[in-house]
Amino acid sequence: MTGDRVYLYDSTLRDGAQTQGVDFSVADKSAIARALDGIGIDYVEGGWPGANPTDDAFFAAPPALHRAQLSAFGMTRRAGRSTSNDPGLAGLLAAKVGVVCMVGKSWDFQVETALGIELDENVAMIADSVRWVLGRDRETMFDAEHFFDGFKANPTYALSCIRAAYDAGARWIVLCDTNGGSLPHEIEAIVGEVATQIPGDHLGIHCHNDTGNAVANSLAAVRAGARQVQGTLNGLGERCGNADLITLIPSLVLKMGYETALTPTDLTRLSHLSRFLDERLNRAPLRSAPYVGESAFAHKGGLHVSAIEKDPRCYEHIAPELVGNHRHIVVSDQAGRSNILARFRDIGLDIDAADPKLNQLVETVKAREFDGYAYDGAEASFELLARQAIETVPEYFKCNSFRVIDERRWNARGELITLSEATVKLEVQGRESMAVAEGNGPVNALDAAMRKVLTAVYPELEDVRLVDYKVRILTPGDGTRAVTRVMIESALGHGDHWSTVGVSTNIIDASYRALHDSIVYKLYRDGASVPAA
Amino acid sequence: MTGDRVYLYDSTLRDGAQTQGVDFSVADKSAIARALDGIGIDYVEGGWPGANPTDDAFFAAPPALHRAQLSAFGMTRRAGRSTSNDPGLAGLLAAKVGVVCMVGKSWDFQVETALGIELDENVAMIADSVRWVLGRDRETMFDAEHFFDGFKANPTYALSCIRAAYDAGARWIVLCDTNGGSLPHEIEAIVGEVATQIPGDHLGIHCHNDTGNAVANSLAAVRAGARQVQGTLNGLGERCGNADLITLIPSLVLKMGYETALTPTDLTRLSHLSRFLDERLNRAPLRSAPYVGESAFAHKGGLHVSAIEKDPRCYEHIAPELVGNHRHIVVSDQAGRSNILARFRDIGLDIDAADPKLNQLVETVKAREFDGYAYDGAEASFELLARQAIETVPEYFKCNSFRVIDERRWNARGELITLSEATVKLEVQGRESMAVAEGNGPVNALDAAMRKVLTAVYPELEDVRLVDYKVRILTPGDGTRAVTRVMIESALGHGDHWSTVGVSTNIIDASYRALHDSIVYKLYRDGASVPAA
Repeated sequence: MTGDRVYLYDSTLRDGAQTQGVDFSVADKSAIARALDGIGIDYVEGGWPGANPTDDAFFAAPPALHRAQLSAFGMTRRAGRSTSNDPGLAGLLAAKVGVVCMVGKSWDFQVETALGIELDENVAMIADSVRWVLGRDRETMFDAEHFFDGFKANPTYALSCIRAAYDAGARWIVLCDTNGGSLPHEIEAIVGEVATQIPGDHLGIHCHNDTGNAVANSLAAVRAGARQVQGTLNGLGERCGNADLITLIPSLVLKMGYETALTPTDLTRLSHLSRFLDERLNRAPLRSAPYVGESAFAHKGGLHVSAIEKDPRCYEHIAPELVGNHRHIVVSDQAGRSNILARFRDIGLDIDAADPKLNQLVETVKAREFDGYAYDGAEASFELLARQAIETVPEYFKCNSFRVIDERRWNARGELITLSEATVKLEVQGRESMAVAEGNGPVNALDAAMRKVLTAVYPELEDVRLVDYKVRILTPGDGTRAVTRVMIESALGHGDHWSTVGVSTNIIDASYRALHDSIVYKLYRDGASVPAA
Repeated sequence: MTGDRVYLYDSTLRDGAQTQGVDFSVADKSAIARALDGIGIDYVEGGWPGANPTDDAFFAAPPALHRAQLSAFGMTRRAGRSTSNDPGLAGLLAAKVGVVCMVGKSWDFQVETALGIELDENVAMIADSVRWVLGRDRETMFDAEHFFDGFKANPTYALSCIRAAYDAGARWIVLCDTNGGSLPHEIEAIVGEVATQIPGDHLGIHCHNDTGNAVANSLAAVRAGARQVQGTLNGLGERCGNADLITLIPSLVLKMGYETALTPTDLTRLSHLSRFLDERLNRAPLRSAPYVGESAFAHKGGLHVSAIEKDPRCYEHIAPELVGNHRHIVVSDQAGRSNILARFRDIGLDIDAADPKLNQLVETVKAREFDGYAYDGAEASFELLARQAIETVPEYFKCNSFRVIDERRWNARGELITLSEATVKLEVQGRESMAVAEGNGPVNALDAAMRKVLTAVYPELEDVRLVDYKVRILTPGDGTRAVTRVMIESALGHGDHWSTVGVSTNIIDASYRALHDSIVYKLYRDGASVPAA
């Protein structure tokens, strides 16, 4: 029998580094290792010593961890080499860590096809390597690559491989679904069989998400007895990624009642940890991520919202605060009054329900939505609308006119090129200023020209960047009266983003409105003062 | 005992419409319904009649489907109303569809808290509504909201609710994990118990992804006997989304051996369907999506690549071609050729594999895709590119220059308005013509000016309308060098649509390229001849 304690092994810095488009620096690796240590992950795999200069630099000066153990990954000895004469093992043992995890084959087809060696030699490679590393005073793990494919093809051989590692003294035997093609019922059945031979509290599971089941497969393995779970933050990893620890942990702890090293307080840090990783990698966090995503506890339909206010259990499977997330009432055309009110409270606007301004604001929101505005995803415009209704937002500037010219013409090299140029006339406290700027498109040019005038007056606009721009035609099929919606995302530095929206029959006008809101929101938030006339 | 046939029910257009940031137009809905019909989904849920103007417009003129049945969603009758006097049911029955799916409660807590009615009244509401709809000659389904939470709290009551629907004659009883909080082992156990009372071939499953297990939960329900699976394309849906049909289908068919209406050829269209939806919604496709993502069969590590070259089974759980995806070798990209060939066959272009033009075309497609072109969702541009490479597409016109001016200024009534005006200089067979036109935006003005010149020469362009226009910034965060992709959808009458794409650092230039392709595609398809000089 195995107990209820499940050990968590993070492979973000090794398997996660295989993600297409991800490229960790040594500083990234150290920061992520410390973050994992901080929430109570048991093992942090730092990388593969000898595989690349980043991993070597990391292991040469590993971060000091307090709760977690740092692990180094590598391969069992090569065929035809002795353990004492294997450069891979030597590199692995040079790493200043207490834990070593070695990968080896357990699928007969792989041994014969990929390695091209005798089946027995592979078993000897596993046993020799485990004994050698154990003799150097490391906690030792064996990752059985392709274990599930191997077990399906030749269970006797697959078992003999992991048995060799266990008998040689490996603390953990980790069963890997390397190709990620196994389904939960297969994992549960196979781990159950293995657990009759090797105790579950020596078995680990390592799943990939190629069928979208990496989390379910990991949970199935734990149910069948495995007591170590390997995964990565946000499910990073090659192809479709690895099992997502951020998703796994709350289900293991809150729903299945297993014990980990995470305290309830650690659990509340999961949402932040997930977003921290994305910020570090400059990736947009996945809104729909289970438990921790911005949308995970978002409510859109008006019926849902009024039910949620009666009792959250109606549409929430856990209290969002348990994982450090929060309820988010989305404003959209499906929203009723209760949605809009709840959203005001979210942005810190406490309006007396009896305030006559409130009804007017609700009517304004509805009218704007009828016109095509969507505040779902344009929080800054929404906040501005609300603040304008109930308090005074200064008129930081007025746009008296603008003109944008896009011209396609021949350049000196005989190529057809398109240039955009914008001229704006803005008024700040009665003083009109004009500026002209070029851009790689009409909105870019308009933004640049407005910025030329405004940064002179409001230096806080200097560092604002336009990071995303989306256009939607709202009435397709009706060419002449089509309404266009533009969404703009602006940013300062890490994590400071805001989104605004503009609607008009003219795309340039809609863009101007979204740009206007972006600038006004930034100035209002900073408490900028309008210069005296 | 239930058979091996599993019925697929798509809720992209109803539950998927709840996704934060998703806002379908009527044209989107029709296009997606047709795409679902085309790959062999059994039921396509079109929306909720009476819930919003978009759904009403959709059901007033639903698209003609050939393989799928269109379904309308709504609620069972309200408490204290008779079925004949319930406006919701009346709206539902006004929809021109053969299938009606009604949702109702099955959790005692919900009945008492959210509805505030007697438990028996809720059961009567279900039975009455099913009988009423059946009497109006519709195939009838009952969605048991919160069924799993209800069953855990009070199994007798939860069963009495679905029993009422089944006894009243509902074809399908759909068990919904509305809050998405259930785990696969719970789903399998509960569906197994239910299936002892209601035959599995009358049971459906509807899962949400709040624990990252929506796919696993759906598969568990099928293993326990359920024979209808509800989900959405790419897992759209509120909060963390619904079960992703794109992920589910290959596991059901290729790995578990169930039968659906999809042929092997339909399966190969899944990758395209997934990307088509994202293009339609102006969302970046998820690279790591199981089965269909760009990274799903990408191999990065050098070891993997050489093993893959020995035998793909080493690191691929299925052959990517089965789902229309392809292997992507990151280090030495030889991917795509067979995929591109398959796409050519799709559009009816049979190219001899030995034709030297073919290699050049494959290289052109790859170079264009590297630059940011995306041909999933821009079939007309793709076809044009191919035809230009292997046959002669006439030069119907040349654009020597254009200029677009957008101006914001005061009108005679003292209002600030924005006007767009375009001037083009086009050359047809050496004769240059100029035209100027106004529009409600720069692209609209440009389109109008081009049309003024061209319809005089090519009258077949008269009825072409620009029905949708989408913009995506491909390099967000890099304002000055941002690349913009524009997708344009053009149409003649009902059902005759084509989509084109343009990429440039300048949005107006990108729009021009997409407009150009749209016009040339139409002329080429019609066999228009260039007038003599």
